[in-house]
Amino acid sequence: MSDPSHATAPPTIVVVGGGFGGIEVVRRLLGAPVDVVLIDRQNHFLFQPLLYQVATAVLAPVEIAFPIRRLFRDARNVWVFQETVVKVDRVEQSIHLSSGRRARYDVLVLAAGASTSYYAHPEWARHAPGMKSIEDAIAIRSRVLRAFEDAEAETDPEAMRAHLTFVIVGGGPTGVELAGAIKELAVDAISRDFRRFDARTARVVLVQGADRLLPGMSEESSAAALESLRRIGVEVRLGAHVTEVFEGGVRIGEDRLLADTVVWAAGVAGHPLAGSLDAPLDPHGRVLVEPDCSVPGSPNVFVIGDMAAPRSDPDGRAVPGVAPAAIQMGRMVGEIIAAEAKARRDGRPRPPRPRFCYHDRGSMATIGRAKAVADLGGLRLRGLVAWLAWLFIHLLLLVGVRNRLFVLLSWGFAYFSFSKSSRTIYGNVPSRVRSSLGARPDEGLGTAADAAEALRSRL
Amino acid sequence: MSDPSHATAPPTIVVVGGGFGGIEVVRRLLGAPVDVVLIDRQNHFLFQPLLYQVATAVLAPVEIAFPIRRLFRDARNVWVFQETVVKVDRVEQSIHLSSGRRARYDVLVLAAGASTSYYAHPEWARHAPGMKSIEDAIAIRSRVLRAFEDAEAETDPEAMRAHLTFVIVGGGPTGVELAGAIKELAVDAISRDFRRFDARTARVVLVQGADRLLPGMSEESSAAALESLRRIGVEVRLGAHVTEVFEGGVRIGEDRLLADTVVWAAGVAGHPLAGSLDAPLDPHGRVLVEPDCSVPGSPNVFVIGDMAAPRSDPDGRAVPGVAPAAIQMGRMVGEIIAAEAKARRDGRPRPPRPRFCYHDRGSMATIGRAKAVADLGGLRLRGLVAWLAWLFIHLLLLVGVRNRLFVLLSWGFAYFSFSKSSRTIYGNVPSRVRSSLGARPDEGLGTAADAAEALRSRL
Repeated sequence: MSDPSHATAPPTIVVVGGGFGGIEVVRRLLGAPVDVVLIDRQNHFLFQPLLYQVATAVLAPVEIAFPIRRLFRDARNVWVFQETVVKVDRVEQSIHLSSGRRARYDVLVLAAGASTSYYAHPEWARHAPGMKSIEDAIAIRSRVLRAFEDAEAETDPEAMRAHLTFVIVGGGPTGVELAGAIKELAVDAISRDFRRFDARTARVVLVQGADRLLPGMSEESSAAALESLRRIGVEVRLGAHVTEVFEGGVRIGEDRLLADTVVWAAGVAGHPLAGSLDAPLDPHGRVLVEPDCSVPGSPNVFVIGDMAAPRSDPDGRAVPGVAPAAIQMGRMVGEIIAAEAKARRDGRPRPPRPRFCYHDRGSMATIGRAKAVADLGGLRLRGLVAWLAWLFIHLLLLVGVRNRLFVLLSWGFAYFSFSKSSRTIYGNVPSRVRSSLGARPDEGLGTAADAAEALRSRL
Repeated sequence: MSDPSHATAPPTIVVVGGGFGGIEVVRRLLGAPVDVVLIDRQNHFLFQPLLYQVATAVLAPVEIAFPIRRLFRDARNVWVFQETVVKVDRVEQSIHLSSGRRARYDVLVLAAGASTSYYAHPEWARHAPGMKSIEDAIAIRSRVLRAFEDAEAETDPEAMRAHLTFVIVGGGPTGVELAGAIKELAVDAISRDFRRFDARTARVVLVQGADRLLPGMSEESSAAALESLRRIGVEVRLGAHVTEVFEGGVRIGEDRLLADTVVWAAGVAGHPLAGSLDAPLDPHGRVLVEPDCSVPGSPNVFVIGDMAAPRSDPDGRAVPGVAPAAIQMGRMVGEIIAAEAKARRDGRPRPPRPRFCYHDRGSMATIGRAKAVADLGGLRLRGLVAWLAWLFIHLLLLVGVRNRLFVLLSWGFAYFSFSKSSRTIYGNVPSRVRSSLGARPDEGLGTAADAAEALRSRL
């Protein structure tokens, strides 16, 4: 809004990231006297809270992804581009794209989310994938399903144990939900599909550094989640730290554990774009924004959602990296931009900006079939009631009638048939079978007769 | 059945490939006095006739894929393994797996399907993917959707034209259905989602070497398909040959055409496994099997489906590479194996083997919304009636109640909302945007104001 060459044209608002925060900003700018350019490296808005259900074969990827440009197809002042932003130049007021091109902005909103932190061990990423994108979730699903396939072709007991061991690092909502869902997949959904092992014996280990699960929730809910997970057979290790991740396993403290599948649901790191801003960052790489979510010294550059660490929370608590916080920041920033654009158009003075204040409406995590915990205001729910509340709220928040219907149907099928339907393994997921079946090692897979023999001898 | 060491144990039947043919063989062996080992490199049975609907965002991948081991989970004499077979050793009676292991068989059934032939130009595969697997279909979908995204960020008219040009090579059912569906995607489903171009102008070119489309169907249906495709705006080139495929386009005869998206739906080549058999092959690389579908000289090795070229069709016509032919071969071979195993168990002499005879129950192809052609016996259907018949038959043939319901719902949504729902772009599909927007080339993407300007100047 400061570039004089655009004094007569509507200002250009560039929003980077089409997640919860970015989408909310654009929604508040519909019909405002501004041109909005929304840039995301993906073509879809991703409903991240249900990503773990894609990773565990309950939902199909498409059910939690919605084309961004479809969202805004009737908004005549919004342009959507699929591009990757690599750098922000606050002096030139432009962003640099991976294609080598640039785009100028009058106002910039950065809402590109967070990335996964492996603390000082980026090399662990190869063996312990994080779960941020739809591709991540599909890769984890393929890895999990492939591990069961490998176990079916395995005879060496130790190797089979490794196939059937799943380690989840991190006891926040993602880790808790993923651990519960993997155990449920093994126990309910696929246990009858394998001949050579009892899938119900699959070992799911949840490693949490803190002394309780779900540190963002109440002590009561933490305890309930722990109890529920243990009851369905998840091995929860509190106050435990992963000291090494290697091909085929992890070290937890001094304890070496062989596991084909390790998923990283722990540390959160700032988005690489935050670094290019040349602004102060907190220890997690988030931008230390002003109370109005703008970057110090640049009132026309805002940072919201997981990229931002607002300093102004009145009660001094950190704003958690959750969807409602991103939506609230997006709403405030969108309203600021719309109000200032209107004031400018009408020749009125710029209105004062509000300060961001996070309203915690509660949080919840699901643990498995008809089991969940929820802190809603003063209310502590658990068990079936919490689970139904969880289902209902997530259905409401989903984008698109079709997605709501299909998710509801998928859940219905999963619930009543005890099965998971999205069990397709994509891509070339390498087998990790170590041993051969039967007496003759040169007859690897063995015949069915051998298999039957081996099975009988083990029973 | 010839290995004396297994004289008392049930014989081991190894079936390679869990497609239409392989699945049918196993179905006929349920409960027979045999042990069945079913090996596929994928974990799912794929309903290939609907693959083009995944490539064009109508269906989600999971809706046409079904876990193979789930199909046979109640069959106590069937073992399922996800493995890749690289070689058959008829002397040793074993198959070699990509993991380096081997598996011995008493009876072997090869049903691994066909691969794509680029005639003498394997290097074309990189620029013009074929469509055989679920991964292929997802990659084509991503490429098609990305082309529209690229067009939105493009200003150079020629480059934009290339983004919006889709070339389909091959005028069989796959090519016809794909061409119709891509045009429909552009015209109906996404035309309102883009600002800088009219998606309805997307150019879909269908290149067919023969002088008519759908050579396997009646002349009448070929003519009807041609007319329907031309009416919805597909450019059909009959008697035309692709003479070159390069990055970003093709040459058709002497005519050079720039196109971001080229899909190969033409030649069929034999499966690599057929070569390792050391058996006679036809010019398409298919095994020239005996009338009972066994390999000459090896009555205990059968080849069925797209891998086989049975020589015995009484009317002398070639058996087409379609699902019904694979199913019919699978049924016959399964029944032969079951009958011989029972005779052996009961000490009866081996019954005589039947000769394969293909029963052509008809064929059909869909062209778009409420448009299809069908030859069913003497009946020639077209238009809405053929389309409804097509929908009904494909729904019936799908595996699983859930898949049927979800496909029906997806079709219902696509029909009544004129939209396609599976529009997620997966993986890193590179942008092919060539030019920059606006007057200043260093401001590549341009601002929305620039975009609006450019749009106005073009209208």
